Amino acid sequence: MHTLDGTDVNIKKIAEIFPNCLTELIGEDGHLHQCIDFDVLRQELSKDVVEGAQERYQFTWPDKKKAIRLANAPTTMTLRPCREESVDFENTQNLYIEGDNLEVLKLLREDYLGKIKMIYIDPPYNTGSDFVYEDDYSQSAIAYAGGSGQTDDLGNRLVQNTESNGRFHTDWLNMMYPRLKVSRDLLTDDGVVFISIDENEADNLKKICDEIFGAYNFITQFVWQNKKGGGNDSVFVAIEHEYVLSYAKNKSSLSAFYEQYSLEYEKRYKEKDDIGRYFWDTFKRKSGKQYYPITCPDGTVLQYDEDGNPISWLRSEKRFHEDIKQGEVRIVPSPNGGWSVQFKQRMPLGKKPRSIFVTETKIIDDKGTTSTGSEDVYDYFKKDVFSNPKPVGLIEYFLGFGVGPNDIVMDFFSGSGTTGEAVMRLNKDGGKRKFILVQLQEIIDKSLEAHSENARRVARNAISVLDELKRPHYLTELGKERIRRAGKKILSENESSKVANGLFSEIETNNTKIDVGFRVLKLDSSNMEDVYYKPEDSSEATLFEDNVKPDRSGEDLLFQVMLECNLSLSAKIQTEKIAGKEVFSVNNGYLIACFDEDVNEEVITAVAKRKPYYFIMRDKSLSSDNVADNFEQIFQAYSKDTIRRIL
Amino acid sequence: MHTLDGTDVNIKKIAEIFPNCLTELIGEDGHLHQCIDFDVLRQELSKDVVEGAQERYQFTWPDKKKAIRLANAPTTMTLRPCREESVDFENTQNLYIEGDNLEVLKLLREDYLGKIKMIYIDPPYNTGSDFVYEDDYSQSAIAYAGGSGQTDDLGNRLVQNTESNGRFHTDWLNMMYPRLKVSRDLLTDDGVVFISIDENEADNLKKICDEIFGAYNFITQFVWQNKKGGGNDSVFVAIEHEYVLSYAKNKSSLSAFYEQYSLEYEKRYKEKDDIGRYFWDTFKRKSGKQYYPITCPDGTVLQYDEDGNPISWLRSEKRFHEDIKQGEVRIVPSPNGGWSVQFKQRMPLGKKPRSIFVTETKIIDDKGTTSTGSEDVYDYFKKDVFSNPKPVGLIEYFLGFGVGPNDIVMDFFSGSGTTGEAVMRLNKDGGKRKFILVQLQEIIDKSLEAHSENARRVARNAISVLDELKRPHYLTELGKERIRRAGKKILSENESSKVANGLFSEIETNNTKIDVGFRVLKLDSSNMEDVYYKPEDSSEATLFEDNVKPDRSGEDLLFQVMLECNLSLSAKIQTEKIAGKEVFSVNNGYLIACFDEDVNEEVITAVAKRKPYYFIMRDKSLSSDNVADNFEQIFQAYSKDTIRRIL
Repeated sequence: MHTLDGTDVNIKKIAEIFPNCLTELIGEDGHLHQCIDFDVLRQELSKDVVEGAQERYQFTWPDKKKAIRLANAPTTMTLRPCREESVDFENTQNLYIEGDNLEVLKLLREDYLGKIKMIYIDPPYNTGSDFVYEDDYSQSAIAYAGGSGQTDDLGNRLVQNTESNGRFHTDWLNMMYPRLKVSRDLLTDDGVVFISIDENEADNLKKICDEIFGAYNFITQFVWQNKKGGGNDSVFVAIEHEYVLSYAKNKSSLSAFYEQYSLEYEKRYKEKDDIGRYFWDTFKRKSGKQYYPITCPDGTVLQYDEDGNPISWLRSEKRFHEDIKQGEVRIVPSPNGGWSVQFKQRMPLGKKPRSIFVTETKIIDDKGTTSTGSEDVYDYFKKDVFSNPKPVGLIEYFLGFGVGPNDIVMDFFSGSGTTGEAVMRLNKDGGKRKFILVQLQEIIDKSLEAHSENARRVARNAISVLDELKRPHYLTELGKERIRRAGKKILSENESSKVANGLFSEIETNNTKIDVGFRVLKLDSSNMEDVYYKPEDSSEATLFEDNVKPDRSGEDLLFQVMLECNLSLSAKIQTEKIAGKEVFSVNNGYLIACFDEDVNEEVITAVAKRKPYYFIMRDKSLSSDNVADNFEQIFQAYSKDTIRRIL
Repeated sequence: MHTLDGTDVNIKKIAEIFPNCLTELIGEDGHLHQCIDFDVLRQELSKDVVEGAQERYQFTWPDKKKAIRLANAPTTMTLRPCREESVDFENTQNLYIEGDNLEVLKLLREDYLGKIKMIYIDPPYNTGSDFVYEDDYSQSAIAYAGGSGQTDDLGNRLVQNTESNGRFHTDWLNMMYPRLKVSRDLLTDDGVVFISIDENEADNLKKICDEIFGAYNFITQFVWQNKKGGGNDSVFVAIEHEYVLSYAKNKSSLSAFYEQYSLEYEKRYKEKDDIGRYFWDTFKRKSGKQYYPITCPDGTVLQYDEDGNPISWLRSEKRFHEDIKQGEVRIVPSPNGGWSVQFKQRMPLGKKPRSIFVTETKIIDDKGTTSTGSEDVYDYFKKDVFSNPKPVGLIEYFLGFGVGPNDIVMDFFSGSGTTGEAVMRLNKDGGKRKFILVQLQEIIDKSLEAHSENARRVARNAISVLDELKRPHYLTELGKERIRRAGKKILSENESSKVANGLFSEIETNNTKIDVGFRVLKLDSSNMEDVYYKPEDSSEATLFEDNVKPDRSGEDLLFQVMLECNLSLSAKIQTEKIAGKEVFSVNNGYLIACFDEDVNEEVITAVAKRKPYYFIMRDKSLSSDNVADNFEQIFQAYSKDTIRRIL
């Protein structure tokens, strides 16, 4: 109906950057056109709310425009490390971040821009008993109305979106929209997102994802039969399914999906070349009619078997000679003497994933139901402590669609931590996939009122477990503990499978290589007093008043600096003493920071001699004005290219 | 958050009448409220387009407001019967209506207001190869742009909504919205609708259904595994499912759903009382410990069996005496002599339907896959002549959720006619369910271009079958033929099952009672020239110029009159000669019509003596001015209450 003219190309370019700006409208010629919604575009580019009255293909709700702006608004918060709750703090590549995921996502936006290969999330389904964030912009209105609603440790308000207040879709949409919008920025160009949801919000989720990721990038809405049986108390239908909605960051960059092979299956294909995995298989065929003589390196001619019958080969004579040249076929000495003709038996690309996962197929052994999810976790606590955790197999299945051995997987509604366990489990194949889990410090005991009897039972279990552990009643405490215990279990399973699979010792299943640690970071207010700290203000060694809050540690400052310098939050951190002062070395000296007291010329000289890319210290740490005066001269002498920052 | 005050009650009342007017908004108190969208309400009540700029929870698209008005706009068209294409024209209760379903629904709106128990539809999925109507209001715009697009026999434009024009959702939404909106009016208060759809438009369909039927009336989105295997050519996922979206007209009036029992199962429960089906079962239990003496009518006491062991009864002694009073237990002479104590073994309410239908469960034998649907029809033509027809078992399954034995089922995208066959098949249980199928006279050969190779093959088959039958290349011709052949098959199956089930002859499976006929009606322009004919203009026997189009028959006029007099279009019609003139008698003389020539006093007198509720004739049929003068006097004398209309 319309050709691809310059305008269309331009529209496409804009749509690639801002898929939510693409809409449909009847043009002056009476035809429907794809076009750019300038109201939305203007909004993406300015801070003013814009209005447009013409009907368009769009889905709106109260404060949608504010939600869009909220995604773009900067954050003043920071992430503080928590060594004592971490596992293998210094070396692990995994992160467990506690706090409001919107703030966390914003903090990660620059640092992890285009670096996350896969996002899986299991957000609240808005069933009336799950919590929904009240974001900043609506707090004042709620506050006036009096003190219902729960407040988390950071003063964020949580509102239960119950049946009694109409289960408003609006609250849920305002919560989801900015989070999904920021998360898209984190995805690699070939990144992919999977979102669990049930029929309460499936259509709304589809609508906002079409907008945020672009309808073109929709992959499918998987159907997962999450339970089986029961439900006879429902009036009309026993609901036995939920969905997993899937979008690509950019469908044209995403590789085809294949179901992951089992480790056992893959082990048969021991060799690997540029094309992929294979093993050497015999070129002889028992049946077939491709008879021809093959001459071996020592002149032996293979043409007849021991009984004098002609040997049939797998491929034609012409193809055989080509394959020999290409290295697809080889002639090697046989262990039994004589010669063996072999070809590369290549691993098939694999089975295409199905859009529907049901309990009756064999596949259920892998992907499970909600009760499988509960069983997965039960082992760790001997009690049900999470409501409807997802089965590990389900997440592992999605991870199998092309999360490479070094990719990062993120889950910013991590709940029971299933995604963390799934990543660690998959790494039994020798991969080094990393996870970033984000979870709000949701308080467990206050969430009981609107819950079902079963949910209350689970909450009581959770509280009793946390009391035994002497931990506060946060969901995050259970999440972390679950990953700690899962990690131990995976290591011990791997150890015993190494013994059992002794035959396949050539396949790497080295225990030391499965990273079951995680670095705990907690969202908190800025480390700085008063003003919002901007790196550019201190890019030169300007000396200004020390404004670090008194309760912040050197490590707190280190992580702030790592974010600002775009270093991965899972970067390797070493601490050492230089001239008696504690010094942090990130990524083997790429960044050196010293937040200790009384730093003198000796320390600064020793650091400068190491020629770090960045050196960071605090103004008030300089032992004297004299040291401050010499600081620049020392770096000019030993490492003038080092970027110096003084907080 | 808000109490149920008077305003809320008022809002609820409005929402019941206009569910699409209910929305969510942040009120002056800063809270979210359910409230009435006055823009939408104003629109429902006036013909003017109204505009409102505030963000709300809503889904819009170009011309949405026009689509709403289109649903309310009157139609000038009529339905013309086609005796020769009908089966059992005079007695059947089923209808097959050819033409644009929006016009047809509007024509049926008054006549079938609140009379349809269940609607099942299988609309175009907007996959790019199916057709979408271009409704009146956008014709002019399209017409200016030149002559692409197909025109059906009635001058309606059909536009293929292909990939190349962006598969615009807008066209599809503008097509669906008014049709669903009108169809809701036809549903009984306890009516229910099932809509097949795949993921191309599932979220949009959900959005418009939430609006039209009210989100509260959403039942579920059933998942149907419509295929199994294949799909390895898909890049990411092999899609093996589609959906059936279900809404109640009014959820609080709808009875609970239960899966229909098989005929075999139900036959065991031979008896029926006010509570339901049952059979008389022995009150004796082999195990149990409820020993007590039971005294029979002749004084015989039953307490010990033949071996002298005490007899244990099903229920306690107290309950036994109550049950005897209630008629739940009886003591009857045993066929073997002596007495038999029996209780009413009642049929259980049944199994709750599941939200997911998969090929692996036993249930698939009933509900099938797309290929089962093809097999269902294959038998009738020995070729595939429909693309992806739905399996009969799937529709039968939904019919089982409480379509009573005398209810009417409608399908206004009837395609292959599966719904018709499903209704007839279900009536093997002795029920007299009726169907109304509506289908556009879609031309088959012109729809080939955008189709897949398989769809083209099916179209070639369809055309060859129609050529053999010497019928035009309309989808409706195949639909009707399918139902004719299905009807014959059902009758013959029923005959043979009667023989096989001789034991159960007490259950009615009387062949003559399965209505496998259908009355064919075709949408056409008004029977009247120039002016739109309104019944109120002629409620008195006013004589005005004859303005019936020359090509219209008496039967054409009869059906127009039946619609206007709110008589069912499946009402019984008899033709007879009165004084040599052809006279129609509808519903055994409730309405009598005579459109023959030269009607004289003798005919009018004979009709008036029968005291019909309505009498209809044509002005020009009066044999003379004298007859016209006497017309009123004759009725005053013999049947002054008869409503007389002269066309």
